[in-house]
Amino acid sequence: MSNAPAPPRRYSYLGPAGTFTEAALRQVPEAAGQEWRPVANLGEALNDVVTGASDAAMIAIENSIDGGVSVAQDALATIPDLRIIGEYLVPVRFVLVTRPGRKLEDVEVVAAHPVAYGQCRAWLDANLSGHRHLPATSNVQAAADLFGEAGIDAGVDAAIAPPGIEEYYDVDVLAEGIAENPDAVTRFVLVSRNTPVGQPTGADKTSLIVELPEDRAGALLDLLEQFATRGVNLTLLASRPIGDRMGRYRFVIDAEGHVRDERVADALLGVKRFSPKVVFLGSYPRADRIAATTHDVHDDERFRDARDWLREVISGAGA
Amino acid sequence: MSNAPAPPRRYSYLGPAGTFTEAALRQVPEAAGQEWRPVANLGEALNDVVTGASDAAMIAIENSIDGGVSVAQDALATIPDLRIIGEYLVPVRFVLVTRPGRKLEDVEVVAAHPVAYGQCRAWLDANLSGHRHLPATSNVQAAADLFGEAGIDAGVDAAIAPPGIEEYYDVDVLAEGIAENPDAVTRFVLVSRNTPVGQPTGADKTSLIVELPEDRAGALLDLLEQFATRGVNLTLLASRPIGDRMGRYRFVIDAEGHVRDERVADALLGVKRFSPKVVFLGSYPRADRIAATTHDVHDDERFRDARDWLREVISGAGA
Amino acid sequence: MSNAPAPPRRYSYLGPAGTFTEAALRQVPEAAGQEWRPVANLGEALNDVVTGASDAAMIAIENSIDGGVSVAQDALATIPDLRIIGEYLVPVRFVLVTRPGRKLEDVEVVAAHPVAYGQCRAWLDANLSGHRHLPATSNVQAAADLFGEAGIDAGVDAAIAPPGIEEYYDVDVLAEGIAENPDAVTRFVLVSRNTPVGQPTGADKTSLIVELPEDRAGALLDLLEQFATRGVNLTLLASRPIGDRMGRYRFVIDAEGHVRDERVADALLGVKRFSPKVVFLGSYPRADRIAATTHDVHDDERFRDARDWLREVISGAGA
Amino acid sequence: MSNAPAPPRRYSYLGPAGTFTEAALRQVPEAAGQEWRPVANLGEALNDVVTGASDAAMIAIENSIDGGVSVAQDALATIPDLRIIGEYLVPVRFVLVTRPGRKLEDVEVVAAHPVAYGQCRAWLDANLSGHRHLPATSNVQAAADLFGEAGIDAGVDAAIAPPGIEEYYDVDVLAEGIAENPDAVTRFVLVSRNTPVGQPTGADKTSLIVELPEDRAGALLDLLEQFATRGVNLTLLASRPIGDRMGRYRFVIDAEGHVRDERVADALLGVKRFSPKVVFLGSYPRADRIAATTHDVHDDERFRDARDWLREVISGAGA
Repeated sequence: MSNAPAPPRRYSYLGPAGTFTEAALRQVPEAAGQEWRPVANLGEALNDVVTGASDAAMIAIENSIDGGVSVAQDALATIPDLRIIGEYLVPVRFVLVTRPGRKLEDVEVVAAHPVAYGQCRAWLDANLSGHRHLPATSNVQAAADLFGEAGIDAGVDAAIAPPGIEEYYDVDVLAEGIAENPDAVTRFVLVSRNTPVGQPTGADKTSLIVELPEDRAGALLDLLEQFATRGVNLTLLASRPIGDRMGRYRFVIDAEGHVRDERVADALLGVKRFSPKVVFLGSYPRADRIAATTHDVHDDERFRDARDWLREVISGAGA
Repeated sequence: MSNAPAPPRRYSYLGPAGTFTEAALRQVPEAAGQEWRPVANLGEALNDVVTGASDAAMIAIENSIDGGVSVAQDALATIPDLRIIGEYLVPVRFVLVTRPGRKLEDVEVVAAHPVAYGQCRAWLDANLSGHRHLPATSNVQAAADLFGEAGIDAGVDAAIAPPGIEEYYDVDVLAEGIAENPDAVTRFVLVSRNTPVGQPTGADKTSLIVELPEDRAGALLDLLEQFATRGVNLTLLASRPIGDRMGRYRFVIDAEGHVRDERVADALLGVKRFSPKVVFLGSYPRADRIAATTHDVHDDERFRDARDWLREVISGAGA
Repeated sequence: MSNAPAPPRRYSYLGPAGTFTEAALRQVPEAAGQEWRPVANLGEALNDVVTGASDAAMIAIENSIDGGVSVAQDALATIPDLRIIGEYLVPVRFVLVTRPGRKLEDVEVVAAHPVAYGQCRAWLDANLSGHRHLPATSNVQAAADLFGEAGIDAGVDAAIAPPGIEEYYDVDVLAEGIAENPDAVTRFVLVSRNTPVGQPTGADKTSLIVELPEDRAGALLDLLEQFATRGVNLTLLASRPIGDRMGRYRFVIDAEGHVRDERVADALLGVKRFSPKVVFLGSYPRADRIAATTHDVHDDERFRDARDWLREVISGAGA
Repeated sequence: MSNAPAPPRRYSYLGPAGTFTEAALRQVPEAAGQEWRPVANLGEALNDVVTGASDAAMIAIENSIDGGVSVAQDALATIPDLRIIGEYLVPVRFVLVTRPGRKLEDVEVVAAHPVAYGQCRAWLDANLSGHRHLPATSNVQAAADLFGEAGIDAGVDAAIAPPGIEEYYDVDVLAEGIAENPDAVTRFVLVSRNTPVGQPTGADKTSLIVELPEDRAGALLDLLEQFATRGVNLTLLASRPIGDRMGRYRFVIDAEGHVRDERVADALLGVKRFSPKVVFLGSYPRADRIAATTHDVHDDERFRDARDWLREVISGAGA
């Protein structure tokens, strides 16, 4: 009867195999041995989650060099009922690869995702001063282009790709560590459909998207006060245009702590009362495991004590 | 058995009959026909409440000319378990009275409570330039001194007293409206022992005494933010020395609204978490019947909606 | 002697002719009749300015749909000695063009700049559900690709291009107004080398890039206070990663008003004292001609009066 | 000609000799050997300064137990052209004295200034439970009353007086150290006519009286921000009614630092622009010699650097 094994969980990610996104997915213990579904772009990945085709999708949300991934932030702001359930960091390193047998001095056209190209620009200018850039849709696709029709037609000689690409494609590595910043890292989030929020781990993050009530600088100040008066620090504050007209923004916010922490819940209540539109994206363990930096005054116990006190003074039981 | 009538309620007030404090007490509908107990000073009045000798005491708390009545503020800050249950305003007007038959030009020594004297100083300097001042303990006592031994011994010729004093004493009124500011008013509060807080009327006030966590200006700013972020205006903010050393203050605060209003309760919770010591003095109808000036965003309904929303997002029921 | 005509001024812009950037440059009266130099990308345009090859460059800085142009913001943050001297708005409208004679039903591959593609995605999905996207480096290049080798090799059938493209290329317009948001607009700035700041027009904007002193939310609040206490509103606040590690941001700020306005100068002084790094990008007339919304209390006259007063009280000349 | 010695400087103070005010005056090195003029009350002391009858007056401004001396604060707020030029602290200690030969058990009526009476109340209740209080106009006058007509007529047996009173009057000391708080201290200020502000000492205080632009709590928050954004701490913030109607206050402010310190000057400029009425009362050395607690970011050098930077960016000389 119910002896049948549970169907495998399915995870969508930006493929093909070998991408940084797949490296992020490899960090998820629950995903091991489940079904991994490579997709062509972010829209497809989130669509899989919305339709139920997949249980979750791993998407890049921020890069320490290039900043927020706008299209991902905008998708989370506008597609209803999504939830972030995990956060993962992947170091950003690049190698320059070519078709077997080619040498560096033969390279004229370099295929690369624009972001990767930007991060390797200094190295390329120094070592391949006359090269041309052909944009690719993913870091791995650039390598794949070395063999595909479009690439060959366009005379692609080399590609910028993640380390380990040689496990997937028959390429020669011409140079390693060609990205400008050796500490660059990309932040990924695992996104599912709406689901009950998990328990705090003591090192959590809460993500929100908030619109301001009015089109003025003071409103942002008021919004930030909602967090500050409860001792809740922010790790991310990014503005994104709402899109209806120039000068109207929504704010992408990552706050330290968990919605089940009293101070975070209280801040969210304040934000919700204040803002015409708040999207709660989830509370989940931080990838860096750093505990929230808060003062005693914002501890859960203080919140409970204050509520007890208020109940007493209203009832006349105490002073 | 229980046919016996309830014993009368007893109200203490700064006497004798005819004082502004008695005028305040006359504004209390529930006090009509009950027992009124004149006392000699504030300490006696509050002591009557603490010991249960009286059910409530009417005390002056602020004067529109002279400011907070420090001794009353300090008493409320330090005597535990008192509650303000009502607020009353009494116009401050003064007459100059004398023993029957005396004329203005005969007056050399004027008995007056120091505060009353200050308010009539300009008139006295203009009309009785050579007079001397004999301090009295109350405005009515000054008139009484016209006949008492101490007064006669000290050569008292005239007294500053409240209008209507001639109903209580055999005096002649030499001049009316001698106070400098015709709009001066004294604010009184009716104080009882700790009791359940009443229901909001829509035009209420909440009184607190708050100590700051640290001895720095920023702490006061943080305290005020607790009210501002919830849209709670203050009608009074007065500092009083804590008394242990120079530069340490507690703050006497009157906030618009009632502790049963969500925004006020939320502000009080914030203040309680923040402050090492909060004394709740009560929520009661405002004497001036002015409704709190708050925005929709701080309505009770907004608070409830926000809580509903938070419950849903945590449970996974909504976005 | 000096009868020789002045050499023409040279303006770099993202070409080829027909781009939105060229449309922005056409709004600059001083550029009429001067030398216009089309370049391939932002880096080239700014490099022309830095090296003196051009007097100024027109660059896209923000899109009402997609937000800040990150690469432009980052370039202005890091290339020293650049100045914004003008701001221009260009409506974003798109047409779908094809090689002469082709029909909509023949289209399989659409060349488009990724941003343009995003804005026309809804129309394409509805009317060309099976199409594929080939990224192009500019909106006009997409049209040019219809005829170039790379395009033909890649089987490009149609391109998303700005209205008026048919004046430059031999294309047929298949559809007009295919962008999702009819009010979309792109904001361009004209950038020169460091130069004395011009005079205020009454409707100006001041651009800054500011790093925060410490890695905490409170620092941003403090930064915003510097503007708020002087009554200076912000029209843009965008965060960009500094790039050294995750979680460190610089802020791109557009403030209402001109650095020669007292309140703006005072705010900048406050920001400069507060921040470890401030880049002043310029004060220039706003494209939308909207005057700053400020109160009397922040008028230049108030600033002068306050300084006069302070000088007097220090010298003992007045109260 | 000018061989004639300069006329002595004259100092008014609340007399008679032996008062705490005289003790404060004894702390002023410049006052040694000059003419000291005892007066009957604060009004007389300030009047001497206004009319030029005296060069300066020593007045009590705050007591660590009773708080601000309201009448002094109000006088400084309303009498134009006064300046505080020094601050002095005097410990508040009291002795109980009587006419020679009397014993403690004979005492029925105690003469005392009301403030002194309040501070000794606990001792008196414990040791003289049945006593009566006769108010006196100064602490020394109370002792004098032991011998004067009014006192004798009123049956005065004992007086509360400052230690050392036996040097001035023929009294017996019945008890020492009878004040409740052994650390109580009174703060005095030396007041002159308007005069150029002196040089900073590194441990200074600046006194102001400020009215708020509107009758709302937010305005006070905005006022405090003017100090906070410049890193200027406050050592005193007291509210005093303006007196025109209930609920309108002016604020008595003592700020750390000197008006010749850049950060204080900048804060004062901000306050002046913001407030409808500011009274500058002076910058003077602190009695407690505690240096202002400020951060590097608010140093004078930072202010100068910021101004240099702003001048350069406006002129086009730098970035």
